[in-house]
Amino acid sequence: MADLGEFGLIARVAARLGAPAAPAGPGDDAAVVPAPDGRVVASTDLLAEGVHFRRDWSTAYEVGVKAAAANLADVAAMGAVPTALLLGVALPGDTPLAWVDGLTDGLREEAARAGAVVVGGDTVASTDRITLAVTALGDLRGRAPVTRAGTRPGTLVVAGPLGHAAAGLALLVAGVGELPDLLAAHRAPRPPYALGPVLADAGATGMCDVSDGLLADLGHLLGDRLGADLALPADVLLAAAGERLGFDPVGWQTAGGEDHSLLAVLPPGVVVPGTTVLGRVTDVPGIRGVSITGRTGHDHFR
Amino acid sequence: MADLGEFGLIARVAARLGAPAAPAGPGDDAAVVPAPDGRVVASTDLLAEGVHFRRDWSTAYEVGVKAAAANLADVAAMGAVPTALLLGVALPGDTPLAWVDGLTDGLREEAARAGAVVVGGDTVASTDRITLAVTALGDLRGRAPVTRAGTRPGTLVVAGPLGHAAAGLALLVAGVGELPDLLAAHRAPRPPYALGPVLADAGATGMCDVSDGLLADLGHLLGDRLGADLALPADVLLAAAGERLGFDPVGWQTAGGEDHSLLAVLPPGVVVPGTTVLGRVTDVPGIRGVSITGRTGHDHFR
Repeated sequence: MADLGEFGLIARVAARLGAPAAPAGPGDDAAVVPAPDGRVVASTDLLAEGVHFRRDWSTAYEVGVKAAAANLADVAAMGAVPTALLLGVALPGDTPLAWVDGLTDGLREEAARAGAVVVGGDTVASTDRITLAVTALGDLRGRAPVTRAGTRPGTLVVAGPLGHAAAGLALLVAGVGELPDLLAAHRAPRPPYALGPVLADAGATGMCDVSDGLLADLGHLLGDRLGADLALPADVLLAAAGERLGFDPVGWQTAGGEDHSLLAVLPPGVVVPGTTVLGRVTDVPGIRGVSITGRTGHDHFR
Repeated sequence: MADLGEFGLIARVAARLGAPAAPAGPGDDAAVVPAPDGRVVASTDLLAEGVHFRRDWSTAYEVGVKAAAANLADVAAMGAVPTALLLGVALPGDTPLAWVDGLTDGLREEAARAGAVVVGGDTVASTDRITLAVTALGDLRGRAPVTRAGTRPGTLVVAGPLGHAAAGLALLVAGVGELPDLLAAHRAPRPPYALGPVLADAGATGMCDVSDGLLADLGHLLGDRLGADLALPADVLLAAAGERLGFDPVGWQTAGGEDHSLLAVLPPGVVVPGTTVLGRVTDVPGIRGVSITGRTGHDHFR
């Protein structure tokens, strides 16, 4: 990679990403992205090697997917449609070119799955580890953004899995190469972005992506005023991983991060196909719950 | 800093940045930024400790200014008005809180100087060095973006200094703590953002910021079709630094990066107050030039 130089690397990445969004190209200082709504939704995340991914556990393609997903889910969780990604990457000089190519491919394809394009970026030399900075932009198409502050009592739902990424990570840490769906959930989460705008249109009063774990993210939605009664569904994959590792899968469901699933509160009585009901949000502060596991029936937690 | 945790750190940074842009707050997944033009200009840069800054050479405040300036200048160079910054920062656990506070202050104040606000970001733990990822957004206010591909023969001008950041870095490397304006140009460049839209309105056909050095950035503007005849102005600060270090200041003027000054090509006959004329762009490929130094009169280069 060092032989190629920064400009060579940028040209290679740009070529691999395909045609840029007109009217600005990869040689320009900045990209120009359509924002027909008149507002733009923007989110930035950093992914650090050794913290968010390991090159011996994930392919470059998977790291690209994961970096894109973490940001695209943030945009979708506001009720917006993702439009563009910008990539910043700090690379050690000995990073194989094939790794950069794989990263680029993963970002491009996951962006496309969300309806977005990679429009720009920056590469710098790093002396030690790979650091990725991804910024996602999105368009609200006239919707009000779904914010944490707007959360009201109603039905709590999730679009996408809960705890799968954490269970996959636990399997990797333990050296267990089974349950590929869980490993994939850690390496390359694939959130249901399209359900973000759908949930917003259904009247979601609060929404976020699950990046820090259900209880942590739900706590942020609820604030001091609201509470929740949870009834977590059984999950056969988590149950299998739990039996394999001797771990209660409720821990992954409640505290596992990085699923990037969409957690939303809908008005009472509203249902949205493709989502799982987790319980209800009330005006009684605190989170109370039972889990419904395949094995033991009901486990109280917290 | 490790004691505070990520949420504590985000809350601290958010409080220091002041009130967020309505309607989304620092607890939301993404920011909502006005984009009245219906398009948004976006640019990302990474700054790596040891590559772009050193904590023993720059204060945290200066690093914040520099990180903001590198991106805000990219937006201004498209002819857009900066509107928002997003900050991603990877921090070793032993980073002093005062350093984070200083960084935040520098970013906020330089953004304000450009008319923009810091609307969001992300912090992650890093085991080794500080890495900053800054994304700047801007609004074109109905203008056509000024792209590299649009460059036509005309008058080449620059808004801001050429070579000052490189000379300042050379002074720091040599341990010479003199010529504070040059040291400041390296540590905390202050590009004239407002001249970006002014140059666009004056009909600039091509524009970029000087991040890699005049000849490199001009070369990108010119492409294969165009050329330039340069007559670089004398610069008393560079001459003083050159005499102090025994270095020809033309090297800094032509190859010094990170000034983040705005380099633009204006239609023949058009002048813009606040800019320095560097020569003319022609349809004869190649860059030819003389430098006008206070000491020797004319030096041919390249």
